[in-house]
Amino acid sequence: MTEPLRLGIAGLGTVGAGVVKIVRQKAALLAERTGRPVTISAVAARNRDKDRGVPLGDYAWEDDAVALATRDDVDVFVELMGGSDGPAKAATEAALAAGKDVVTANKAMLAHHGQALAQLAEANGAVLRFEAAVAGGIPVIKALTEGLAGNDITRVMGVMNGTCNYILTRMESAGLTYDQAFAEADKLGYLEADPELDVGGIDAGHKLSLLAAIAFGTQVAFESVELEGIGKVSIDDIRQAADMGYKVKLLGVCRMTGRGLEQRMAPCLVPATSPLGQLDGGTNMVVIEGDQVGQIVMRGAGAGEGPTASAVMGDVMDIARGTRLSTFGQPASSLKPATAAQVATPAPYYLRMCLVDKPGALAKVATALGDAGISINRMRQYDHTDDAAPVLIVTHKTTRAALDVALVAMAATGVVAREPVALRIERV
Amino acid sequence: MTEPLRLGIAGLGTVGAGVVKIVRQKAALLAERTGRPVTISAVAARNRDKDRGVPLGDYAWEDDAVALATRDDVDVFVELMGGSDGPAKAATEAALAAGKDVVTANKAMLAHHGQALAQLAEANGAVLRFEAAVAGGIPVIKALTEGLAGNDITRVMGVMNGTCNYILTRMESAGLTYDQAFAEADKLGYLEADPELDVGGIDAGHKLSLLAAIAFGTQVAFESVELEGIGKVSIDDIRQAADMGYKVKLLGVCRMTGRGLEQRMAPCLVPATSPLGQLDGGTNMVVIEGDQVGQIVMRGAGAGEGPTASAVMGDVMDIARGTRLSTFGQPASSLKPATAAQVATPAPYYLRMCLVDKPGALAKVATALGDAGISINRMRQYDHTDDAAPVLIVTHKTTRAALDVALVAMAATGVVAREPVALRIERV
Repeated sequence: MTEPLRLGIAGLGTVGAGVVKIVRQKAALLAERTGRPVTISAVAARNRDKDRGVPLGDYAWEDDAVALATRDDVDVFVELMGGSDGPAKAATEAALAAGKDVVTANKAMLAHHGQALAQLAEANGAVLRFEAAVAGGIPVIKALTEGLAGNDITRVMGVMNGTCNYILTRMESAGLTYDQAFAEADKLGYLEADPELDVGGIDAGHKLSLLAAIAFGTQVAFESVELEGIGKVSIDDIRQAADMGYKVKLLGVCRMTGRGLEQRMAPCLVPATSPLGQLDGGTNMVVIEGDQVGQIVMRGAGAGEGPTASAVMGDVMDIARGTRLSTFGQPASSLKPATAAQVATPAPYYLRMCLVDKPGALAKVATALGDAGISINRMRQYDHTDDAAPVLIVTHKTTRAALDVALVAMAATGVVAREPVALRIERV
Repeated sequence: MTEPLRLGIAGLGTVGAGVVKIVRQKAALLAERTGRPVTISAVAARNRDKDRGVPLGDYAWEDDAVALATRDDVDVFVELMGGSDGPAKAATEAALAAGKDVVTANKAMLAHHGQALAQLAEANGAVLRFEAAVAGGIPVIKALTEGLAGNDITRVMGVMNGTCNYILTRMESAGLTYDQAFAEADKLGYLEADPELDVGGIDAGHKLSLLAAIAFGTQVAFESVELEGIGKVSIDDIRQAADMGYKVKLLGVCRMTGRGLEQRMAPCLVPATSPLGQLDGGTNMVVIEGDQVGQIVMRGAGAGEGPTASAVMGDVMDIARGTRLSTFGQPASSLKPATAAQVATPAPYYLRMCLVDKPGALAKVATALGDAGISINRMRQYDHTDDAAPVLIVTHKTTRAALDVALVAMAATGVVAREPVALRIERV
């Protein structure tokens, strides 16, 4: 039997404790599959006294993650602290600088510093892997980087924030308002300390930017992800979308176009009968499209102790087996700067608005759309009891820019009672 | 740039030609992603004069696959000839014996000789990979072997024969009889030269046996896969299953039980709303369940030039990147002989029968079930015009053995007009 692979684990929350459990309980399995024992040398966390449901006495304790990351008896630094900067980044940098491999679940750190960290890893002959950072237990980084490497990737889509999908699903299935569903998710502990990371689409946007880098060979460009949260999606939108055969999902989409890289994370309408449309609750789904393979759909738990620890262990076991891959699937120096597409690919849009109940109101709205070059596919005006008439319009394919022109023109007519809701209808 | 990785490709059918196209057209992409050029040294096929839509003049031609496999200028032998024995096996053995890596799409060869070939590969320091052998473009071998390696796998299921799923889907959606749908699939060129490989479940059974070996660390045991084809599924079964919220799928299931390894490939009922139930047409789906990750679902094209070539290239690029994995995810010598479970895990069963239209007929059938210890969950007798009354029974959980006892007893009563159809209802 060859030398053990020795881990140093920083961060002993749910996922960290899960990784410790797997290493302890599956020692024989891990050794059989990788050809060498996988052991833990040391751990680090903020609070030494907390009971984490797993014995830690066999491992050296470090209060400082940087000290842990650079220990002589650590081969792989497992970073499960979180946070885009601070100790997580300092310790990751220290480990890589010391030539140690790093496995991390930290999407925020990679979304902000992925390029620099990948370069640092390669300069020091170290490997930096992050399967657990995207879509929890779904081995999507591996599929995209390795299994589908013979493809020119044409589009990647994903529902990658289980909390948002839970909220949207509960609004639909239980008829809850956004605020009610949000409160329910909060009560269940599904929300990040800063809920805007979830419902603002930031967390899912981080993940999307990592997938885009691998898919298109570009430097991670989180700053150019078009972000839109789910906060303005109402129960009316969900019902009226359902009425037309759609579901509302916080959907990430990235594609390379002649105009540059398109990265969007926004609530969209998708056909209710599509795999994405059928994804209910906290589950994640990633759809990868390649010129050879067509469409690959992957679905699984996007969070939680077991699924995330499973992803961490996949990376650890790759390293134990001697697999050495570039962070984003090709040398960091060969990743091209991403030029953001200024104009998104045209699509049909769903528009929901309330019109003041006066003769000619609908005509004014239709005129504003026509003047912007947007033609109408479907329109419905719903029965109403108050002064404002709910109107639903589905446009033919148009650009968001043209739509924005129309929305400004509509606002100027004075017949629009409240700010309209505009949601893209994504072909999936 | 390091030395090129030089391929020798045997078999220039659809998939072989697809691989040649990718290597020719994506040279820059492959080199960027793997860090070295991927080239073709030589090719072999039965007919040199056939136009395959791709220029072959740059490559040496071999009439004999064994000669190709052992050429000095071939690093990786790509076996795309098919057939469990004969030239495919001879050439694969020759390549491995010469220490050359092998990438194959040949499920039949691996189902029958996987253990011996894996041992031969390891004895010679060679790698033998087969992503394209299972579920076409879906990177499921990679997911199971690598991404989910930190899990004890609890169950793997799959719809892995697109032709069967096409036939069943057409029966359902277009109301075709089995014979009509079969003829349609034949006309479209979907069937193997020996159709029994498809509709008898053999092809899908080959694939299941490979997944089981990886999942449970056992030697490939195709001979102990319980095989049942789709030939006896009638349009009545499909309609009546639909009536109760189920779809009929040719479903492979493997799991390790206290009684040994269970491997079944048979038409089953699955909930119409489950991902497996929603899988229509020629698409494949594999569901992997692990103790940590929960349920992972992967869906994509199970056949065709692009998807299968994509899978072949995934393996080739792994080798180009220096990834060296055991064939079934752990050393061949550590794979345990699989003891076949003699008794399958209990499940509810769907029973369709025709009873002679006499008083007491239903009572006799119910008694036969009761005597075998099988209780009835649902029963329906349908309106009928001829002498035989169609009766549908859904049992509570039972074993197939108990059911067989009941079926024999039923036959002895003389009230059963035709041989009953019994389909397992799989919890998915």
